[in-house]
Amino acid sequence: MSAKIRLYVEHPLGAGQSVPLDRGQAHYLFGVMRMTVGGQVKLFNGTDGEWLADVAQAGKRAGVLTCVEQTKPLQMPPDLWLLFAPIKKARTDFIVEKAAEMGAARILPVQTDFTNSERIRQDRLQAHAIEAAEQCGGTYVPQVDDLQKLSRLLDDWPEGRQLMFCDEAEVGNALQLIAQGGASRPRAEAERPPMGADGRCPAYRPGKETQPGSWAILIGPEGGFSEAERKRLHALPYSHVVSLGPRILRADTAAVAAMTLWQQTLGDW
Amino acid sequence: MSAKIRLYVEHPLGAGQSVPLDRGQAHYLFGVMRMTVGGQVKLFNGTDGEWLADVAQAGKRAGVLTCVEQTKPLQMPPDLWLLFAPIKKARTDFIVEKAAEMGAARILPVQTDFTNSERIRQDRLQAHAIEAAEQCGGTYVPQVDDLQKLSRLLDDWPEGRQLMFCDEAEVGNALQLIAQGGASRPRAEAERPPMGADGRCPAYRPGKETQPGSWAILIGPEGGFSEAERKRLHALPYSHVVSLGPRILRADTAAVAAMTLWQQTLGDW
Repeated sequence: MSAKIRLYVEHPLGAGQSVPLDRGQAHYLFGVMRMTVGGQVKLFNGTDGEWLADVAQAGKRAGVLTCVEQTKPLQMPPDLWLLFAPIKKARTDFIVEKAAEMGAARILPVQTDFTNSERIRQDRLQAHAIEAAEQCGGTYVPQVDDLQKLSRLLDDWPEGRQLMFCDEAEVGNALQLIAQGGASRPRAEAERPPMGADGRCPAYRPGKETQPGSWAILIGPEGGFSEAERKRLHALPYSHVVSLGPRILRADTAAVAAMTLWQQTLGDW
Repeated sequence: MSAKIRLYVEHPLGAGQSVPLDRGQAHYLFGVMRMTVGGQVKLFNGTDGEWLADVAQAGKRAGVLTCVEQTKPLQMPPDLWLLFAPIKKARTDFIVEKAAEMGAARILPVQTDFTNSERIRQDRLQAHAIEAAEQCGGTYVPQVDDLQKLSRLLDDWPEGRQLMFCDEAEVGNALQLIAQGGASRPRAEAERPPMGADGRCPAYRPGKETQPGSWAILIGPEGGFSEAERKRLHALPYSHVVSLGPRILRADTAAVAAMTLWQQTLGDW
Protein backbone atom coordinates (compact mmCIF):
# COMPACT_ATOMS: atom_id res chain seq x y z
CA MET A 1 0.00 0.00 0.00
CA SER A 2 1.44 3.34 -0.94
CA ALA A 3 1.74 6.03 1.70
CA LYS A 4 -1.19 8.41 1.31
CA ILE A 5 -0.50 10.72 4.22
CA ARG A 6 1.83 13.64 3.59
CA LEU A 7 3.27 15.65 6.45
CA TYR A 8 5.25 18.86 6.53
CA VAL A 9 8.05 18.71 9.12
CA GLU A 10 10.60 21.27 10.20
CA HIS A 11 13.50 18.83 10.19
CA PRO A 12 16.21 17.79 7.72
CA LEU A 13 15.28 14.83 5.49
CA GLY A 14 17.69 12.29 3.96
CA ALA A 15 18.32 8.55 3.63
CA GLY A 16 18.20 6.90 7.08
CA GLN A 17 17.43 10.21 8.78
CA SER A 18 15.36 9.98 12.01
CA VAL A 19 12.57 12.55 12.22
CA PRO A 20 10.86 13.22 15.56
CA LEU A 21 7.19 14.12 15.45
CA ASP A 22 5.63 16.89 17.47
CA ARG A 23 2.68 16.22 19.71
CA GLY A 24 0.02 17.28 17.17
CA GLN A 25 1.49 15.14 14.42
CA ALA A 26 1.83 12.12 16.70
CA HIS A 27 -1.78 12.52 17.77
CA TYR A 28 -2.90 12.77 14.15
CA LEU A 29 -0.90 9.77 12.89
CA PHE A 30 -1.32 7.39 15.78
CA GLY A 31 -4.52 8.60 17.43
CA VAL A 32 -6.66 9.76 14.50
CA MET A 33 -5.26 7.71 11.62
CA ARG A 34 -4.41 4.67 13.83
CA MET A 35 -1.03 4.13 12.27
CA THR A 36 1.40 1.74 13.97
CA VAL A 37 5.11 0.93 13.75
CA GLY A 38 5.98 -0.06 10.20
CA GLY A 39 3.32 2.19 8.65
CA GLN A 40 4.48 4.63 5.98
CA VAL A 41 3.98 8.34 5.37
CA LYS A 42 5.51 10.90 3.06
CA LEU A 43 7.43 13.84 4.47
CA PHE A 44 8.57 17.16 3.06
CA ASN A 45 10.21 20.16 4.67
CA GLY A 46 10.29 22.72 1.89
CA THR A 47 13.94 22.17 1.03
CA ASP A 48 14.78 18.45 0.71
CA GLY A 49 11.99 17.20 -1.57
CA GLU A 50 9.56 14.46 -0.57
CA TRP A 51 10.65 11.37 1.34
CA LEU A 52 8.97 8.07 2.11
CA ALA A 53 9.33 7.34 5.82
CA ASP A 54 8.60 4.39 8.09
CA VAL A 55 7.07 4.73 11.53
CA ALA A 56 9.86 3.65 13.90
CA GLN A 57 8.26 4.63 17.22
CA ALA A 58 4.58 5.40 17.85
CA GLY A 59 3.33 6.96 21.06
CA LYS A 60 0.37 9.05 22.07
CA ARG A 61 2.35 12.24 22.38
CA ALA A 62 5.48 11.55 20.38
CA GLY A 63 6.88 9.38 17.66
CA VAL A 64 9.82 8.91 15.35
CA LEU A 65 9.89 8.31 11.62
CA THR A 66 12.83 7.04 9.58
CA CYS A 67 13.35 8.30 6.02
CA VAL A 68 13.57 5.46 3.46
CA GLU A 69 13.93 7.04 0.05
CA GLN A 70 13.28 10.26 -1.80
CA THR A 71 10.02 10.08 -3.75
CA LYS A 72 10.14 13.57 -5.30
CA PRO A 73 12.85 16.16 -5.72
CA LEU A 74 12.25 19.66 -4.39
CA GLN A 75 10.06 21.47 -6.87
CA MET A 76 10.33 25.19 -6.41
CA PRO A 77 7.38 27.19 -7.70
CA PRO A 78 8.07 30.11 -10.02
CA ASP A 79 9.08 33.34 -8.27
CA LEU A 80 5.49 34.55 -7.96
CA TRP A 81 4.18 36.59 -5.05
CA LEU A 82 0.49 36.96 -4.31
CA LEU A 83 -0.51 40.28 -2.75
CA PHE A 84 -4.08 40.49 -1.50
CA ALA A 85 -6.14 42.60 0.85
CA PRO A 86 -7.59 40.42 3.63
CA ILE A 87 -11.35 40.06 3.57
CA LYS A 88 -13.75 37.98 5.65
CA LYS A 89 -12.06 35.19 7.57
CA ALA A 90 -13.28 32.23 5.52
CA ARG A 91 -12.39 33.89 2.22
CA THR A 92 -8.97 34.97 3.47
CA ASP A 93 -8.25 31.39 4.55
CA PHE A 94 -9.40 30.30 1.14
CA ILE A 95 -7.09 32.70 -0.71
CA VAL A 96 -4.08 31.43 1.24
CA GLU A 97 -5.04 27.80 0.61
CA LYS A 98 -5.52 28.45 -3.10
CA ALA A 99 -2.28 30.43 -3.45
CA ALA A 100 -0.35 27.47 -2.01
CA GLU A 101 -2.15 25.01 -4.31
CA MET A 102 -1.64 27.16 -7.37
CA GLY A 103 2.07 27.52 -6.76
CA ALA A 104 2.70 30.95 -5.29
CA ALA A 105 6.18 31.32 -3.80
CA ARG A 106 5.20 33.92 -1.17
CA ILE A 107 1.91 35.28 0.13
CA LEU A 108 1.72 38.90 1.25
CA PRO A 109 -1.44 40.22 2.91
CA VAL A 110 -1.57 43.97 2.29
CA GLN A 111 -3.54 46.83 3.80
CA THR A 112 -5.06 49.11 1.18
CA ASP A 113 -7.02 52.34 1.61
CA PHE A 114 -10.30 50.37 1.62
CA THR A 115 -9.14 47.29 3.55
CA ASN A 116 -11.26 46.64 6.61
CA SER A 117 -8.99 44.41 8.60
CA GLU A 118 -6.35 45.90 10.87
CA ARG A 119 -4.66 42.63 11.66
CA ILE A 120 -4.44 39.02 10.57
CA ARG A 121 -3.50 35.82 12.35
CA GLN A 122 -0.26 35.16 10.47
CA ASP A 123 0.34 31.85 12.29
CA ARG A 124 -3.09 30.53 11.34
CA LEU A 125 -2.67 31.55 7.71
CA GLN A 126 0.77 29.92 7.60
CA ALA A 127 -0.80 26.72 8.93
CA HIS A 128 -3.34 26.88 6.10
CA ALA A 129 -0.54 27.17 3.56
CA ILE A 130 1.19 24.14 5.08
CA GLU A 131 -2.01 22.08 5.02
CA ALA A 132 -2.62 23.02 1.39
CA ALA A 133 0.91 21.94 0.45
CA GLU A 134 0.36 18.65 2.29
CA GLN A 135 -2.83 18.08 0.30
CA CYS A 136 -1.72 19.19 -3.13
CA GLY A 137 1.44 17.12 -3.32
CA GLY A 138 3.72 20.14 -3.29
CA THR A 139 7.22 19.99 -1.81
CA TYR A 140 7.41 23.72 -1.10
CA VAL A 141 5.44 25.84 1.37
CA PRO A 142 4.98 29.51 0.54
CA GLN A 143 5.80 31.92 3.33
CA VAL A 144 2.86 33.97 4.58
CA ASP A 145 3.97 37.46 5.60
CA ASP A 146 2.39 39.55 8.29
CA LEU A 147 0.00 42.29 7.23
CA GLN A 148 1.73 45.37 5.83
CA LYS A 149 0.65 48.55 4.12
CA LEU A 150 0.53 48.31 0.33
CA SER A 151 1.91 51.84 0.05
CA ARG A 152 4.96 50.92 2.10
CA LEU A 153 5.52 47.74 0.12
CA LEU A 154 5.46 49.80 -3.08
CA ASP A 155 7.88 52.31 -1.57
CA ASP A 156 10.42 49.51 -1.14
CA TRP A 157 9.48 47.51 -4.22
CA PRO A 158 12.28 45.10 -5.20
CA GLU A 159 14.03 46.00 -8.40
CA GLY A 160 13.15 43.86 -11.38
CA ARG A 161 9.91 42.41 -9.98
CA GLN A 162 6.94 42.86 -12.32
CA LEU A 163 3.45 43.50 -10.95
CA MET A 164 0.24 42.11 -12.46
CA PHE A 165 -2.41 44.46 -11.15
CA CYS A 166 -5.98 43.18 -11.37
CA ASP A 167 -7.97 46.39 -11.58
CA GLU A 168 -11.66 45.75 -11.16
CA ALA A 169 -12.39 49.21 -12.53
CA GLU A 170 -11.20 47.82 -15.86
CA VAL A 171 -14.13 45.44 -15.72
CA GLY A 172 -16.41 48.41 -16.19
CA ASN A 173 -14.54 49.36 -19.31
CA ALA A 174 -14.88 45.87 -20.67
CA LEU A 175 -18.59 45.95 -19.97
CA GLN A 176 -19.05 49.19 -21.85
CA LEU A 177 -17.10 47.87 -24.79
CA ILE A 178 -19.27 44.77 -24.92
CA ALA A 179 -22.40 46.86 -24.80
CA GLN A 180 -21.14 49.02 -27.63
CA GLY A 181 -19.48 46.58 -29.92
CA GLY A 182 -20.72 43.12 -29.09
CA ALA A 183 -18.50 40.19 -29.82
CA SER A 184 -16.41 41.99 -32.43
CA ARG A 185 -15.29 44.79 -30.17
CA PRO A 186 -11.64 45.77 -30.33
CA ARG A 187 -9.80 44.32 -27.40
CA ALA A 188 -8.84 47.08 -25.01
CA GLU A 189 -5.22 47.27 -23.99
CA ALA A 190 -6.15 46.36 -20.46
CA GLU A 191 -7.84 43.15 -21.51
CA ARG A 192 -4.76 41.67 -23.07
CA PRO A 193 -2.53 39.53 -20.93
CA PRO A 194 0.41 41.63 -19.87
CA MET A 195 2.89 39.29 -21.47
CA GLY A 196 3.69 38.38 -25.03
CA ALA A 197 4.29 41.88 -26.32
CA ASP A 198 5.60 40.27 -29.48
CA GLY A 199 2.04 39.27 -30.31
CA ARG A 200 2.68 35.59 -29.76
CA CYS A 201 1.11 33.68 -26.92
CA PRO A 202 3.94 32.71 -24.57
CA ALA A 203 1.99 29.60 -23.55
CA TYR A 204 2.72 28.20 -26.97
CA ARG A 205 6.45 28.67 -26.84
CA PRO A 206 7.84 25.17 -26.83
CA GLY A 207 8.93 24.36 -23.33
CA LYS A 208 8.62 27.96 -22.17
CA GLU A 209 12.35 28.21 -22.56
CA THR A 210 12.46 31.71 -21.17
CA GLN A 211 12.26 32.12 -17.41
CA PRO A 212 9.40 34.32 -16.27
CA GLY A 213 11.56 36.21 -13.80
CA SER A 214 10.15 37.75 -10.64
CA TRP A 215 6.48 38.65 -10.54
CA ALA A 216 3.75 39.63 -8.12
CA ILE A 217 -0.02 39.54 -8.55
CA LEU A 218 -2.09 42.14 -6.71
CA ILE A 219 -5.76 41.45 -5.93
CA GLY A 220 -7.80 44.34 -4.61
CA PRO A 221 -10.12 44.48 -1.61
CA GLU A 222 -13.88 44.08 -1.91
CA GLY A 223 -14.36 47.83 -2.03
CA GLY A 224 -11.80 48.18 -4.81
CA PHE A 225 -8.78 50.44 -4.81
CA SER A 226 -8.95 54.12 -3.97
CA GLU A 227 -8.43 56.62 -6.77
CA ALA A 228 -5.02 57.54 -5.35
CA GLU A 229 -4.00 53.89 -5.25
CA ARG A 230 -5.21 53.22 -8.79
CA LYS A 231 -3.36 56.26 -10.07
CA ARG A 232 -0.14 55.18 -8.40
CA LEU A 233 -0.50 51.56 -9.53
CA HIS A 234 -1.19 52.55 -13.13
CA ALA A 235 1.84 54.83 -13.19
CA LEU A 236 4.35 52.31 -11.85
CA PRO A 237 6.82 51.33 -14.58
CA TYR A 238 6.66 47.67 -13.53
CA SER A 239 2.88 47.32 -13.33
CA HIS A 240 0.77 45.48 -15.92
CA VAL A 241 -2.95 46.07 -15.70
CA VAL A 242 -5.24 43.16 -16.50
CA SER A 243 -8.98 42.68 -16.53
CA LEU A 244 -10.53 39.43 -15.37
CA GLY A 245 -13.54 39.39 -17.65
CA PRO A 246 -16.85 41.23 -17.85
CA ARG A 247 -18.30 40.08 -14.52
CA ILE A 248 -17.16 41.34 -11.13
CA LEU A 249 -15.23 38.58 -9.37
CA ARG A 250 -15.03 38.23 -5.62
CA ALA A 251 -11.48 38.64 -4.34
CA ASP A 252 -11.02 34.91 -3.74
CA THR A 253 -12.19 34.04 -7.24
CA ALA A 254 -10.01 36.76 -8.71
CA ALA A 255 -6.96 35.36 -6.92
CA VAL A 256 -7.40 31.89 -8.42
CA ALA A 257 -8.24 33.27 -11.87
CA ALA A 258 -5.26 35.64 -11.93
CA MET A 259 -2.85 32.93 -10.79
CA THR A 260 -4.24 30.60 -13.46
CA LEU A 261 -3.60 33.17 -16.19
CA TRP A 262 -0.11 33.80 -14.90
CA GLN A 263 0.81 30.12 -14.46
CA GLN A 264 -0.56 29.21 -17.87
CA THR A 265 1.19 32.08 -19.62
CA LEU A 266 4.46 32.42 -17.74
CA GLY A 267 4.56 29.83 -15.00
CA ASP A 268 5.01 26.09 -14.60
CA TRP A 269 1.71 24.80 -16.06
CA MET B 1 -26.69 57.92 -4.82
CA SER B 2 -26.51 55.03 -7.22
CA ALA B 3 -28.42 51.85 -6.44
CA LYS B 4 -26.02 49.34 -4.95
CA ILE B 5 -28.43 46.51 -4.23
CA ARG B 6 -29.10 44.05 -7.04
CA LEU B 7 -32.00 41.63 -6.86
CA TYR B 8 -32.96 38.69 -9.03
CA VAL B 9 -36.72 38.55 -9.58
CA GLU B 10 -38.88 36.09 -11.46
CA HIS B 11 -40.97 38.76 -13.15
CA PRO B 12 -40.93 40.58 -16.52
CA LEU B 13 -38.94 43.84 -16.49
CA GLY B 14 -39.57 46.88 -18.71
CA ALA B 15 -40.13 50.64 -18.57
CA GLY B 16 -42.88 51.47 -16.07
CA GLN B 17 -43.33 47.80 -15.14
CA SER B 18 -44.51 47.10 -11.58
CA VAL B 19 -42.63 44.29 -9.88
CA PRO B 20 -44.03 42.74 -6.69
CA LEU B 21 -41.53 41.51 -4.12
CA ASP B 22 -41.79 38.23 -2.30
CA ARG B 23 -41.71 38.10 1.48
CA GLY B 24 -38.00 37.34 1.73
CA GLN B 25 -37.04 40.17 -0.59
CA ALA B 26 -39.32 42.63 1.19
CA HIS B 27 -37.81 41.65 4.52
CA TYR B 28 -34.31 42.10 3.14
CA LEU B 29 -34.92 45.47 1.48
CA PHE B 30 -37.15 47.11 4.11
CA GLY B 31 -36.26 45.23 7.28
CA VAL B 32 -32.53 44.55 6.91
CA MET B 33 -31.45 47.32 4.51
CA ARG B 34 -33.98 49.87 5.86
CA MET B 35 -35.02 51.07 2.42
CA THR B 36 -38.09 53.25 2.12
CA VAL B 37 -40.39 54.48 -0.66
CA GLY B 38 -38.30 56.30 -3.26
CA GLY B 39 -35.20 54.20 -2.66
CA GLN B 40 -33.62 52.53 -5.68
CA VAL B 41 -32.42 49.03 -6.47
CA LYS B 42 -31.33 47.20 -9.59
CA LEU B 43 -33.29 44.22 -10.86
CA PHE B 44 -32.58 41.43 -13.33
CA ASN B 45 -34.53 38.34 -14.25
CA GLY B 46 -32.17 36.46 -16.54
CA THR B 47 -33.88 37.58 -19.74
CA ASP B 48 -34.57 41.34 -19.77
CA GLY B 49 -31.20 42.75 -18.73
CA GLU B 50 -30.73 44.96 -15.66
CA TRP B 51 -33.21 47.66 -14.67
CA LEU B 52 -33.08 50.51 -12.21
CA ALA B 53 -36.25 50.42 -10.10
CA ASP B 54 -37.86 52.72 -7.53
CA VAL B 55 -39.47 51.47 -4.36
CA ALA B 56 -43.19 52.29 -4.83
CA GLN B 57 -44.60 50.44 -1.81
CA ALA B 58 -42.69 49.19 1.20
CA GLY B 59 -44.18 46.82 3.78
CA LYS B 60 -42.85 44.28 6.23
CA ARG B 61 -43.99 41.31 4.19
CA ALA B 62 -44.54 42.74 0.72
CA GLY B 63 -43.55 45.58 -1.52
CA VAL B 64 -43.71 46.85 -5.08
CA LEU B 65 -40.95 48.27 -7.24
CA THR B 66 -41.37 50.24 -10.46
CA CYS B 67 -38.86 49.87 -13.28
CA VAL B 68 -37.34 53.19 -14.36
CA GLU B 69 -34.77 52.47 -17.04
CA GLN B 70 -32.59 49.69 -18.35
CA THR B 71 -29.05 49.96 -16.97
CA LYS B 72 -27.56 46.92 -18.77
CA PRO B 73 -28.68 44.79 -21.67
CA LEU B 74 -28.94 41.03 -21.17
CA GLN B 75 -25.45 39.60 -21.37
CA MET B 76 -25.59 35.91 -22.10
CA PRO B 77 -22.51 33.95 -21.07
CA PRO B 78 -20.85 31.71 -23.62
CA ASP B 79 -22.48 28.29 -24.04
CA LEU B 80 -20.32 26.66 -21.38
CA TRP B 81 -21.50 23.91 -19.06
CA LEU B 82 -19.69 23.02 -15.87
CA LEU B 83 -19.90 19.35 -14.89
CA PHE B 84 -18.57 18.49 -11.45
CA ALA B 85 -18.84 15.70 -8.91
CA PRO B 86 -20.28 17.05 -5.63
CA ILE B 87 -17.89 17.03 -2.70
CA LYS B 88 -18.19 18.34 0.84
CA LYS B 89 -21.02 20.80 1.31
CA ALA B 90 -19.02 24.00 1.66
CA ARG B 91 -16.86 23.22 -1.36
CA THR B 92 -19.88 22.24 -3.47
CA ASP B 93 -21.53 25.56 -2.60
CA PHE B 94 -18.31 27.26 -3.52
CA ILE B 95 -18.10 25.57 -6.93
CA VAL B 96 -21.64 26.68 -7.80
CA GLU B 97 -20.92 30.25 -6.65
CA LYS B 98 -17.70 30.39 -8.66
CA ALA B 99 -19.29 28.87 -11.78
CA ALA B 100 -21.93 31.63 -11.74
CA GLU B 101 -19.29 34.33 -11.21
CA MET B 102 -17.03 32.97 -13.93
CA GLY B 103 -19.82 32.88 -16.50
CA ALA B 104 -20.98 29.28 -16.84
CA ALA B 105 -24.28 28.97 -18.68
CA ARG B 106 -25.40 25.77 -16.92
CA ILE B 107 -24.15 23.82 -13.91
CA LEU B 108 -24.52 20.03 -13.88
CA PRO B 109 -23.62 18.07 -10.74
CA VAL B 110 -22.69 14.54 -11.84
CA GLN B 111 -22.26 11.23 -10.05
CA THR B 112 -19.07 9.43 -10.95
CA ASP B 113 -17.81 6.01 -9.91
CA PHE B 114 -15.96 7.55 -6.97
CA THR B 115 -18.50 10.25 -6.00
CA ASN B 116 -19.55 9.97 -2.40
CA SER B 117 -22.76 11.95 -2.43
CA GLU B 118 -26.01 10.30 -3.42
CA ARG B 119 -28.06 13.46 -3.54
CA ILE B 120 -27.75 17.22 -3.57
CA ARG B 121 -30.04 20.06 -2.51
CA GLN B 122 -30.71 21.42 -5.97
CA ASP B 123 -32.84 24.29 -4.63
CA ARG B 124 -30.09 25.43 -2.27
CA LEU B 125 -27.46 25.29 -5.00
CA GLN B 126 -29.73 27.24 -7.36
CA ALA B 127 -30.12 29.89 -4.65
CA HIS B 128 -26.32 30.12 -4.44
CA ALA B 129 -26.11 30.67 -8.20
CA ILE B 130 -28.70 33.46 -7.94
CA GLU B 131 -26.85 35.13 -5.06
CA ALA B 132 -23.58 34.96 -6.99
CA ALA B 133 -25.21 36.57 -10.04
CA GLU B 134 -26.63 39.32 -7.79
CA GLN B 135 -23.14 39.97 -6.39
CA CYS B 136 -21.09 39.78 -9.56
CA GLY B 137 -23.16 42.14 -11.67
CA GLY B 138 -24.32 39.44 -14.07
CA THR B 139 -27.69 39.62 -15.81
CA TYR B 140 -27.95 35.87 -16.35
CA VAL B 141 -28.37 33.06 -13.81
CA PRO B 142 -27.04 29.63 -14.75
CA GLN B 143 -29.45 26.76 -14.23
CA VAL B 144 -28.30 24.20 -11.67
CA ASP B 145 -29.43 20.71 -12.67
CA ASP B 146 -30.27 17.92 -10.29
CA LEU B 147 -27.64 15.25 -9.70
CA GLN B 148 -27.35 12.75 -12.56
CA LYS B 149 -25.01 9.93 -13.44
CA LEU B 150 -22.05 10.99 -15.58
CA SER B 151 -22.34 7.77 -17.60
CA ARG B 152 -25.96 8.52 -18.51
CA LEU B 153 -25.11 12.11 -19.42
CA LEU B 154 -22.39 10.83 -21.75
CA ASP B 155 -24.84 8.28 -23.26
CA ASP B 156 -27.08 11.16 -24.33
CA TRP B 157 -24.34 13.71 -25.02
CA PRO B 158 -25.61 16.55 -27.23
CA GLU B 159 -24.17 16.55 -30.72
CA GLY B 160 -21.57 19.19 -31.37
CA ARG B 161 -20.74 19.96 -27.71
CA GLN B 162 -17.02 19.72 -26.95
CA LEU B 163 -15.79 18.45 -23.59
CA MET B 164 -12.75 19.81 -21.75
CA PHE B 165 -11.81 16.95 -19.44
CA CYS B 166 -9.53 17.87 -16.56
CA ASP B 167 -7.74 14.61 -15.88
CA GLU B 168 -5.79 14.75 -12.66
CA ALA B 169 -3.91 11.63 -13.71
CA GLU B 170 -2.30 13.87 -16.34
CA VAL B 171 -0.80 15.83 -13.47
CA GLY B 172 1.41 12.83 -12.79
CA ASN B 173 2.62 12.95 -16.36
CA ALA B 174 3.46 16.60 -16.06
CA LEU B 175 5.32 15.92 -12.84
CA GLN B 176 7.43 13.21 -14.42
CA LEU B 177 8.24 15.45 -17.34
CA ILE B 178 9.35 18.20 -15.02
CA ALA B 179 11.50 15.79 -13.04
CA GLN B 180 13.11 14.54 -16.24
CA GLY B 181 13.51 17.64 -18.28
CA GLY B 182 13.32 20.62 -16.01
CA ALA B 183 12.12 23.88 -17.44
CA SER B 184 12.93 22.98 -21.01
CA ARG B 185 10.85 19.83 -21.11
CA PRO B 186 8.81 19.25 -24.24
CA ARG B 187 5.20 20.17 -23.56
CA ALA B 188 3.12 17.02 -23.47
CA GLU B 189 0.06 16.99 -25.69
CA ALA B 190 -2.14 16.95 -22.63
CA GLU B 191 -0.63 20.14 -21.29
CA ARG B 192 -1.60 22.23 -24.27
CA PRO B 193 -4.89 24.02 -24.19
CA PRO B 194 -7.34 21.99 -26.26
CA MET B 195 -8.01 24.89 -28.59
CA GLY B 196 -5.98 26.71 -31.16
CA ALA B 197 -5.00 23.69 -33.24
CA ASP B 198 -3.59 26.11 -35.79
CA GLY B 199 -0.82 26.89 -33.33
CA ARG B 200 -2.01 30.41 -32.67
CA CYS B 201 -3.37 31.46 -29.36
CA PRO B 202 -7.08 32.16 -29.84
CA ALA B 203 -6.98 34.74 -27.09
CA TYR B 204 -5.00 36.97 -29.41
CA ARG B 205 -7.42 36.89 -32.31
CA PRO B 206 -8.69 40.44 -32.50
CA GLY B 207 -12.13 40.53 -30.96
CA LYS B 208 -12.36 36.74 -30.87
CA GLU B 209 -14.48 36.94 -34.00
CA THR B 210 -15.10 33.22 -34.04
CA GLN B 211 -17.73 31.87 -31.70
CA PRO B 212 -16.48 29.19 -29.34
CA GLY B 213 -19.53 26.98 -29.92
CA SER B 214 -20.88 24.64 -27.28
CA TRP B 215 -18.54 23.37 -24.61
CA ALA B 216 -18.54 21.61 -21.28
CA ILE B 217 -15.84 21.40 -18.61
CA LEU B 218 -15.66 18.25 -16.49
CA ILE B 219 -14.01 18.36 -13.05
CA GLY B 220 -13.44 15.03 -11.32
CA PRO B 221 -14.25 13.99 -7.76
CA GLU B 222 -11.68 14.07 -4.97
CA GLY B 223 -10.89 10.40 -5.48
CA GLY B 224 -10.31 10.95 -9.18
CA PHE B 225 -11.99 9.10 -12.03
CA SER B 226 -12.14 5.30 -12.19
CA GLU B 227 -10.04 3.56 -14.83
CA ALA B 228 -13.20 2.70 -16.80
CA GLU B 229 -14.30 6.34 -16.72
CA ARG B 230 -10.90 7.63 -17.77
CA LYS B 231 -10.77 5.16 -20.65
CA ARG B 232 -14.19 6.19 -21.87
CA LEU B 233 -13.50 9.91 -21.47
CA HIS B 234 -10.20 9.68 -23.32
CA ALA B 235 -11.85 7.78 -26.20
CA LEU B 236 -14.71 10.21 -26.75
CA PRO B 237 -14.31 12.00 -30.08
CA TYR B 238 -15.42 15.31 -28.53
CA SER B 239 -13.18 15.20 -25.44
CA HIS B 240 -10.08 17.37 -24.98
CA VAL B 241 -7.81 16.34 -22.13
CA VAL B 242 -6.07 19.11 -20.21
CA SER B 243 -3.72 19.19 -17.27
CA LEU B 244 -3.98 21.91 -14.65
CA GLY B 245 -0.32 22.13 -13.71
CA PRO B 246 2.11 20.04 -11.72
CA ARG B 247 0.36 20.29 -8.33
CA ILE B 248 -2.84 18.44 -7.45
CA LEU B 249 -5.68 20.92 -7.22
CA ARG B 250 -8.72 20.46 -5.04
CA ALA B 251 -11.92 20.15 -7.07
CA ASP B 252 -13.05 23.68 -6.25
CA THR B 253 -9.72 25.19 -7.28
CA ALA B 254 -9.68 23.10 -10.44
CA ALA B 255 -13.15 24.37 -11.38
CA VAL B 256 -12.07 28.03 -11.19
CA ALA B 257 -8.75 27.37 -12.94
CA ALA B 258 -10.36 25.39 -15.77
CA MET B 259 -13.04 28.03 -16.35
CA THR B 260 -10.35 30.73 -16.38
CA LEU B 261 -8.41 28.90 -19.09
CA TRP B 262 -11.56 28.38 -21.11
CA GLN B 263 -12.86 31.94 -20.75
CA GLN B 264 -9.48 33.42 -21.56
CA THR B 265 -8.94 31.22 -24.59
CA LEU B 266 -12.42 30.82 -26.05
CA GLY B 267 -14.86 32.73 -23.89
CA ASP B 268 -15.86 36.30 -23.14
CA TRP B 269 -12.80 37.52 -21.21
